Amino acid sequence: MAPVRVLEYARRNRPRFLAELKEFVRFPSISSQAQYGTAVKRCANWLAGRLQRAGLETVKIGPTAGHPIVYGSWQRAIDRPTVLIYGHYDVMPVDPLSEWRTPPFRPQVRGNDLYGRGTCDDKGQLFTYVKALESYLQSERALPVNVKCLFEGEEEVDSPHLAAFVAGNKDLLRANAAVMSDTRMLAPGQPAIGYSQRGALLIELEVHGPKSDLHSGNFGGAVHNPLQALCEMITRLHDARGRIAIPGFYDAIRTWSAGEREYMARVGPSDEKILQDAHVGQGWGEHGYSLYERTTVRPSLSVHGIVGGYQGAGFKTIIPARAAAKFTFRLVPDQDPEEVAHLFRRYIERITPPAVQSMVRVISSARPALVERDHPSVRAAAFALRKGFGTAPVFLRSGGTVPVVNTFREILGIPTVLMGFALPDNRIHAPNEKFHLPNFFNGIATCIWFLAAAGAMMTRNSRAFARSAAHGD
Amino acid sequence: MAPVRVLEYARRNRPRFLAELKEFVRFPSISSQAQYGTAVKRCANWLAGRLQRAGLETVKIGPTAGHPIVYGSWQRAIDRPTVLIYGHYDVMPVDPLSEWRTPPFRPQVRGNDLYGRGTCDDKGQLFTYVKALESYLQSERALPVNVKCLFEGEEEVDSPHLAAFVAGNKDLLRANAAVMSDTRMLAPGQPAIGYSQRGALLIELEVHGPKSDLHSGNFGGAVHNPLQALCEMITRLHDARGRIAIPGFYDAIRTWSAGEREYMARVGPSDEKILQDAHVGQGWGEHGYSLYERTTVRPSLSVHGIVGGYQGAGFKTIIPARAAAKFTFRLVPDQDPEEVAHLFRRYIERITPPAVQSMVRVISSARPALVERDHPSVRAAAFALRKGFGTAPVFLRSGGTVPVVNTFREILGIPTVLMGFALPDNRIHAPNEKFHLPNFFNGIATCIWFLAAAGAMMTRNSRAFARSAAHGD
Repeated sequence: MAPVRVLEYARRNRPRFLAELKEFVRFPSISSQAQYGTAVKRCANWLAGRLQRAGLETVKIGPTAGHPIVYGSWQRAIDRPTVLIYGHYDVMPVDPLSEWRTPPFRPQVRGNDLYGRGTCDDKGQLFTYVKALESYLQSERALPVNVKCLFEGEEEVDSPHLAAFVAGNKDLLRANAAVMSDTRMLAPGQPAIGYSQRGALLIELEVHGPKSDLHSGNFGGAVHNPLQALCEMITRLHDARGRIAIPGFYDAIRTWSAGEREYMARVGPSDEKILQDAHVGQGWGEHGYSLYERTTVRPSLSVHGIVGGYQGAGFKTIIPARAAAKFTFRLVPDQDPEEVAHLFRRYIERITPPAVQSMVRVISSARPALVERDHPSVRAAAFALRKGFGTAPVFLRSGGTVPVVNTFREILGIPTVLMGFALPDNRIHAPNEKFHLPNFFNGIATCIWFLAAAGAMMTRNSRAFARSAAHGD
Repeated sequence: MAPVRVLEYARRNRPRFLAELKEFVRFPSISSQAQYGTAVKRCANWLAGRLQRAGLETVKIGPTAGHPIVYGSWQRAIDRPTVLIYGHYDVMPVDPLSEWRTPPFRPQVRGNDLYGRGTCDDKGQLFTYVKALESYLQSERALPVNVKCLFEGEEEVDSPHLAAFVAGNKDLLRANAAVMSDTRMLAPGQPAIGYSQRGALLIELEVHGPKSDLHSGNFGGAVHNPLQALCEMITRLHDARGRIAIPGFYDAIRTWSAGEREYMARVGPSDEKILQDAHVGQGWGEHGYSLYERTTVRPSLSVHGIVGGYQGAGFKTIIPARAAAKFTFRLVPDQDPEEVAHLFRRYIERITPPAVQSMVRVISSARPALVERDHPSVRAAAFALRKGFGTAPVFLRSGGTVPVVNTFREILGIPTVLMGFALPDNRIHAPNEKFHLPNFFNGIATCIWFLAAAGAMMTRNSRAFARSAAHGD
């Protein structure tokens, strides 16, 4: 049955919902800067208060070794599935402050957008769920599905304590699927569901030569330069056609059907769009694949920085004693980070010039992740987005990594639905971050429909639900 | 006549000379870093004070657009030649600071060595002349030759204002020959005179890609990485056999006679010795030449540092917007720095990958230089070294560049005698720089003998002088 009264409650309370979101944004909950520790805590308390007023049964603040986790649950939907709602209430730093048109923590509506740090990433998106839960509980006194909320305060510092918290609270967090909104729509009016993300393997490579820096006048030409050797080795990581040159690197990669590639070409961003977003004139990389494919179903290897030698102003004419580089492999199904690290080590051993020594250090890794498009939770999300935005969503692959997806899969054994309400131009992590208000209100409606659909689709015949829902639309 | 009383004065005052050298080293006179500007100035004033106390007639601090030049002269040796003594009181930066066993500007004697930045390059070597002058003037009240001292504070930043100062003060600096000690002996107990040095061409190469840093998850595999492109270009600067791969680069290089190569093989350091000095297990570079030849009569190209991307702690998974590298070419007769810069630019243009832009900046250059081995000033130096160290010197080619040799030849028309007191393992420009104290004291004696010999050999029959000197030895 369509959640008519719930949607009506949400519609009636829009001004108050917006006022509350502004309150939420006013906390400078910057997780990476110690001086904001109290603000992060106060923000967590405020958020817990909202969950309580929304009508959740249990609300707790879960301490971690870092910033706290806000937890809330409602579990009276007997024989119904459980949905785990994830979000984060911490935000990125605001510098350069001078580039903000209005202060980052004094949210302001201009046109159809709310401006302020965190309006989009992720307070605004997280809050759509809080307001959907309130709308349900305050109008119907019940939810169509069991719900657990896990809102963390350390996403912007790579969630250092989340996995331990999840592992230590497996019973508390047990659910059938997770859902979150911290990703992007394809364009205004075109919702999207993320169903694939690349894995990541972060590696450092260090090259050692002479015991200490040498004068290039005295030794240049007679002693190999570790910085040059490092450059030679980095060069040999790709072949002339933009492919990664490590033997065996591509062996485990899944081949996608013509149908899948055709779907990607139809719904995904064009080469032109990607180059425009990157502000570059021309593409690069593996021949035979579109740029969208190169950044999603094909792996990549990026060098992020090189340390070694003299990097100050002016010149220091040395042959440096050592040099190091930091890399990330982006991995795709069915590559295994451990296996790739092994292949990398073996190749580096082979291509290290005899006059220097090399060392490989694995920093961290995450597996590539896929959510089956026909998982009931994904179908519930697709249905809800069509209801909330009036347009059927497209299914998008992402080139990046949302580590929590792996955490939930590996520790709780559940898929995570990525139902993003951000727009490509919301300037997340940058000055003048904003959130499109129609997406906030349509997002709340979408969350309401998602709760309704999940309750039905994840248990019984979804067609019957869709038919009955259509009546009330 | 042998300078018996002068040498005796020097011997007697060794402890004080060492204490003063330590005072000298205590000034952090790093010329390349603006925050040390005051220290450089204070160091110049201190050095001028020493010249005054030594007994020179005229002592001045000559301002330049950069760090000051310390000038001193004594010109009462009527009808005698004039020797221009050059040295530099500025020093290299000290990073990585953590690798110093004792703080770089708190000089410490351990064994027979004085440790600290500048102990060897060039404060310790420069100071041998100051103490030789003092020994002469305080014991004999006169010098056997006219003397002018020019001590600069910008040698480690490539002497940007020296040539203008010399050109603007040609009369003040007029001399018959210059002498300096900023080069190496072959080994402890085996003095050497430098008669050939490589030229230098300092270049920066910058590579630009996207307008700002990109997220490697979103764009890795689709956009070329300027840091990777830079590595590829650096790799292509050498071929697989260690030769510089720039077309035309070797065309102008002089071929040396079999006799010259034989002399070099006989007196020059062996491959083993050079590897030992460099603390590396094996050599590298151009096939068909000894390591000594590779570092003196063959050119080289060294990359000193790469800037670009994230170089802090942890990871920032970006594709950087730009990357840059600093290089020095070491050039040999008869390569012309301008012509080499032209060849480099043309080659870089050719090998810049199409998806990025590159930019070449020439920072400075110096021609390769040769001094005639039988010039009277060189013969005076050979005589003095034999007296000071008890062994006849060998004639050595140097791989480095002493640009001032070119400045003096081109503007004043005089040769420069390179009478180095450094040892191969003194770690100049590196952590734990040191100066061998026997070389400091023998160096002072050598300078005393040089003043005596120069007064005679550069005017009249040198054999007569040598005979009379032998009596007093």
